[in-house]
Amino acid sequence: MSEFQPADPDFERRVPSSFARQGIMSHIGAEMIEVGPGHCEIRLPYGEHVSQQHGFFHGGIVATIADSAAGYAGFSLMPTGAGVLTVEFKINLVAPADGELLIARGSVVRPGRTLTVSRAEVSAMKNGSSRVCAILQQTLMTITGRPDVVG
Amino acid sequence: MSEFQPADPDFERRVPSSFARQGIMSHIGAEMIEVGPGHCEIRLPYGEHVSQQHGFFHGGIVATIADSAAGYAGFSLMPTGAGVLTVEFKINLVAPADGELLIARGSVVRPGRTLTVSRAEVSAMKNGSSRVCAILQQTLMTITGRPDVVG
Amino acid sequence: MSEFQPADPDFERRVPSSFARQGIMSHIGAEMIEVGPGHCEIRLPYGEHVSQQHGFFHGGIVATIADSAAGYAGFSLMPTGAGVLTVEFKINLVAPADGELLIARGSVVRPGRTLTVSRAEVSAMKNGSSRVCAILQQTLMTITGRPDVVG
Amino acid sequence: MSEFQPADPDFERRVPSSFARQGIMSHIGAEMIEVGPGHCEIRLPYGEHVSQQHGFFHGGIVATIADSAAGYAGFSLMPTGAGVLTVEFKINLVAPADGELLIARGSVVRPGRTLTVSRAEVSAMKNGSSRVCAILQQTLMTITGRPDVVG
Repeated sequence: MSEFQPADPDFERRVPSSFARQGIMSHIGAEMIEVGPGHCEIRLPYGEHVSQQHGFFHGGIVATIADSAAGYAGFSLMPTGAGVLTVEFKINLVAPADGELLIARGSVVRPGRTLTVSRAEVSAMKNGSSRVCAILQQTLMTITGRPDVVG
Repeated sequence: MSEFQPADPDFERRVPSSFARQGIMSHIGAEMIEVGPGHCEIRLPYGEHVSQQHGFFHGGIVATIADSAAGYAGFSLMPTGAGVLTVEFKINLVAPADGELLIARGSVVRPGRTLTVSRAEVSAMKNGSSRVCAILQQTLMTITGRPDVVG
Repeated sequence: MSEFQPADPDFERRVPSSFARQGIMSHIGAEMIEVGPGHCEIRLPYGEHVSQQHGFFHGGIVATIADSAAGYAGFSLMPTGAGVLTVEFKINLVAPADGELLIARGSVVRPGRTLTVSRAEVSAMKNGSSRVCAILQQTLMTITGRPDVVG
Repeated sequence: MSEFQPADPDFERRVPSSFARQGIMSHIGAEMIEVGPGHCEIRLPYGEHVSQQHGFFHGGIVATIADSAAGYAGFSLMPTGAGVLTVEFKINLVAPADGELLIARGSVVRPGRTLTVSRAEVSAMKNGSSRVCAILQQTLMTITGRPDVVG
């Protein structure tokens, strides 16, 4: 189905395991819903604890789950024993993140030995309808000697 | 001292008041330390609740406080009754955000009637020494009819 | 076919006419191949005059045609008498721009009254095969009182 | 004077030599005015051949010289035999690039073995006064086995 071949067949265990070690994700209530070779979906229900001053999701939080979705999309293609770091990202907040649920879908544009380029699209669900509220473009680095998941 | 003249002399009350309405900031423990015409400083002590998988501050959280520091730097120059929205930002995570405290300093590059361009620099304090861990470049929009602070 | 409705039915004349007024495009040999509601394609044959130090297309030139393709995709949806300005863009150069021909395809992500968000993908054609070498994400502003095309 | 120590004492010869091999620079009339450890200045006089539709410098050309100024600032700190590639950049066009001369000043924010982060600021000179028209933030990669300058 996917255009990418994972280097590590165990990625379906390794990616959620790394996600589970990000303290911020459980603190805000984000969940990894799906991971495949080169893609990943993260969801976050609304609450006042993730809001900005007008009652929408805070742009930084939209960026946080978009960065994670795109980053774990990239991490899914990295070899056993590798770690992943975000080098940089850019996000356009194209509409207010207004709704009950945020859905971030990350996908790899181009994997590489050292650098990987990924994207994410974030949608807000409100009263059953979905609307794109942000798009992100990101550079990741594969790091060795500091694995995301041990054992 | 500053090169910018605030349009609203009451900005020193209005900016922290808007910040106080961002639920995410108190949820993660961020504090606005200072605001002046065209600049703003936000700090965030470390805790597992803002961590990524290697025990550093999560890149999305670094982005969250950098976005807020740069955004409130811009908001300080906006007129009474205005609201501020982040149009987009780009962040380079130039070093691991490793330390006890994050300090984000935002400053306006160019204010405008509709769009304002700001920057932020984020440093991590560890054992008393400071190190730049991220730089951000951002576009803000002044919105009317949806004030950040009422009354 | 397209998901967007152009505000100006005359956009198919107006967009190439604005492009023709960009001196840089004829100077480097770029051509607008196609324009539709919310999308645009620009091509640039290789020559030493657009090269960088390793003999590939210069990254700034890749950015120049990507910026124009995405910008004219946005301009196609703007009303009669409007002008278009690029507010900002971000580009990832994901592979060397190595080949005989560059093809930049721009498309609108979200049109707006004041701001429009667009993307472009640039491919290099080499010996008959095509490879993505850059992706761009961009913010445009609709300006009034300074039309791109008069008459 | 500078905070950075160049790895290659011969950088003052190597950097302009690489610049001279970028065909696009002579084609548009850009000149490298100065290079030091971690900084670089490039200038470009106005002409119709670098214009956009309103008679200003084209945003892509502003990006081209900003990318080169920031890139050569980074290259000045790289070791003998290295090559430099732009991984990505983001540019805010904060004012129309209106004037007789563009001046791009690049500077390194953080050099690294693999990745270097740089910035550039571009000003337009008009009737003797200077105005910032763009700011750029960039990631560079040091490459080995494909030197910018041979011999």
